[in-house]
Amino acid sequence: MEFPGIILDTSSISSLKKPEQGVLYDMLIVGGGAAAMSAAVYAARKMLHFALITLDFGGLIKETSEIDNYLGFQNIQARDLIEKFEEHVKSFDIPINFGVPVIEVTKEDKIFKVLLEDRSGFSGHTVIFATGEHHRPLNVPGEREFLGKGVAYCATCDAPLFKDKKVVIAGGGNSAFISALDLMRVNSEVFLVNFTAGWQADATVRQRVEKYAKVHFLDNYKILRIDGKDSVESVAVRNRLTGNEERIQCDGVFIEVGLIPNSEPVKKLVKLNEQGEVVIDCFGRTDTPGFYAAGDVTSVPYKQIIISAGDGAKAALSAYDFLIKNSIL
Amino acid sequence: MEFPGIILDTSSISSLKKPEQGVLYDMLIVGGGAAAMSAAVYAARKMLHFALITLDFGGLIKETSEIDNYLGFQNIQARDLIEKFEEHVKSFDIPINFGVPVIEVTKEDKIFKVLLEDRSGFSGHTVIFATGEHHRPLNVPGEREFLGKGVAYCATCDAPLFKDKKVVIAGGGNSAFISALDLMRVNSEVFLVNFTAGWQADATVRQRVEKYAKVHFLDNYKILRIDGKDSVESVAVRNRLTGNEERIQCDGVFIEVGLIPNSEPVKKLVKLNEQGEVVIDCFGRTDTPGFYAAGDVTSVPYKQIIISAGDGAKAALSAYDFLIKNSIL
Repeated sequence: MEFPGIILDTSSISSLKKPEQGVLYDMLIVGGGAAAMSAAVYAARKMLHFALITLDFGGLIKETSEIDNYLGFQNIQARDLIEKFEEHVKSFDIPINFGVPVIEVTKEDKIFKVLLEDRSGFSGHTVIFATGEHHRPLNVPGEREFLGKGVAYCATCDAPLFKDKKVVIAGGGNSAFISALDLMRVNSEVFLVNFTAGWQADATVRQRVEKYAKVHFLDNYKILRIDGKDSVESVAVRNRLTGNEERIQCDGVFIEVGLIPNSEPVKKLVKLNEQGEVVIDCFGRTDTPGFYAAGDVTSVPYKQIIISAGDGAKAALSAYDFLIKNSIL
Repeated sequence: MEFPGIILDTSSISSLKKPEQGVLYDMLIVGGGAAAMSAAVYAARKMLHFALITLDFGGLIKETSEIDNYLGFQNIQARDLIEKFEEHVKSFDIPINFGVPVIEVTKEDKIFKVLLEDRSGFSGHTVIFATGEHHRPLNVPGEREFLGKGVAYCATCDAPLFKDKKVVIAGGGNSAFISALDLMRVNSEVFLVNFTAGWQADATVRQRVEKYAKVHFLDNYKILRIDGKDSVESVAVRNRLTGNEERIQCDGVFIEVGLIPNSEPVKKLVKLNEQGEVVIDCFGRTDTPGFYAAGDVTSVPYKQIIISAGDGAKAALSAYDFLIKNSIL
């Protein structure tokens, strides 16, 4: 199982208290983004006997640059916000299994087992599954190199950084056009570049974008590479009809070709929707009792840090209620 | 209309940009707690033409002391967190109507009107209603005086501050018993004091609390007053059967006799549940198109700052989608 786009930071692994394999925990929190970390804060405050199992800290937050829509932090670098989250979680004495991907979560006799790639495994009465998702990459040269230096994956987060600038949006669906709307509001010049002929976005959103004077539509174009020195300066594209190569001068590239939820480990355990997201209700409950989910891996449509943090807390409190009702606590 | 428990801070009113009465806004955000402020941050980032209408900033957060369950802030005074929220909101140039209670919200020809006590009124295509709720007070001497000095209204928030201490809980319903569970986890000695004979909490929760060695049950007792010097030291109660007055030595009093949602202004406009909370779905939608709600005033059962902030963002993004779909933006 792969999590493309996740950069592993192993600097602080050694100092962590490790969870024990033979122990039956009240709760296992799987993931290390805002949803998982907020759930951990709530579980710690309830003094639950629980463990956190994660590949890394921060999840997709790492792929953005500045954040100014997380209430309480006016303008903060993504790295700094992750650090604050991480410090908050580590201020409680939580056993953390770090750096190993989860392969599968199973349930037998009301007990969940979280199985890891290194063949270790942990047991719990409840699970909060918050593994997030990863951006479907374009897989072109320059994409990884200029991440946070012009290359962005979230218009809601990053559009204001491109005020009055030129931006290429890769994609032709709703998220690409909604990114265009975000960029229109900050007066950017927008180049929508879609691989296939035509556009997949809903008509209403498309019409809104089409009215904008500073938008260019390039469908049936393949993005070949992203070029620049210290940051993005241009994008090389090929007209798939004529075969001609062209160059678009720009300050940024928004990649909106889809997100892939990291739900692989639970596809046999809980209901997923067509997008592969874990289907939850308003309480973070799934169709498997005792199994909760929160954040970007779920069916909640808005992928935002503050929403993940709120829903992580909600899932932890729901799971706490479950533990009380079932006399496990 | 009254909002008991809200302390009005008028220090920064004069510097605010006021919204205009003749203008039709894209969105009106009503309220000044975490839900409303997070919605405002999202609306500002979307560059919506909107206004914030609130009696105060911070809402119920003011009634707690320390906060350490808002992801990113390890340990922060309630006042300081409110200040950070307020600064964040004010960093955008948002017109704010401050200090006047909202009397009613109406809808006519797809336009909402928010009417205030001073007979002013504002119009919008959408509304985010996030007025929060207020604690039903005991109305006894000492209650207001020792607020944050032993008197608390939120066990999930404040139980850890009473580790190994003696705490009186006023109330006999689920929230009182769940507060007892929270206090049990931090090894407090607990005195449950209920006005009526018997207990209203669910059996499962009651049984859990009954097993605890350091809990005392005093039903059919009236709390007369809360006494102390710098902080709570004791509570005077009267046995309603014998008429005898007794004194409980304690370090804290948790008042769990109910919360009252501030939904009065919209009771004719949207569906409320039995508790008077605005019924919302997972997207913050109500049964009135264009009218959204978030935070403590809603049917979401967990009244937590991070959850309000997340749901405020969700409601703002839902309303944004509504504005796009209806070609208002």
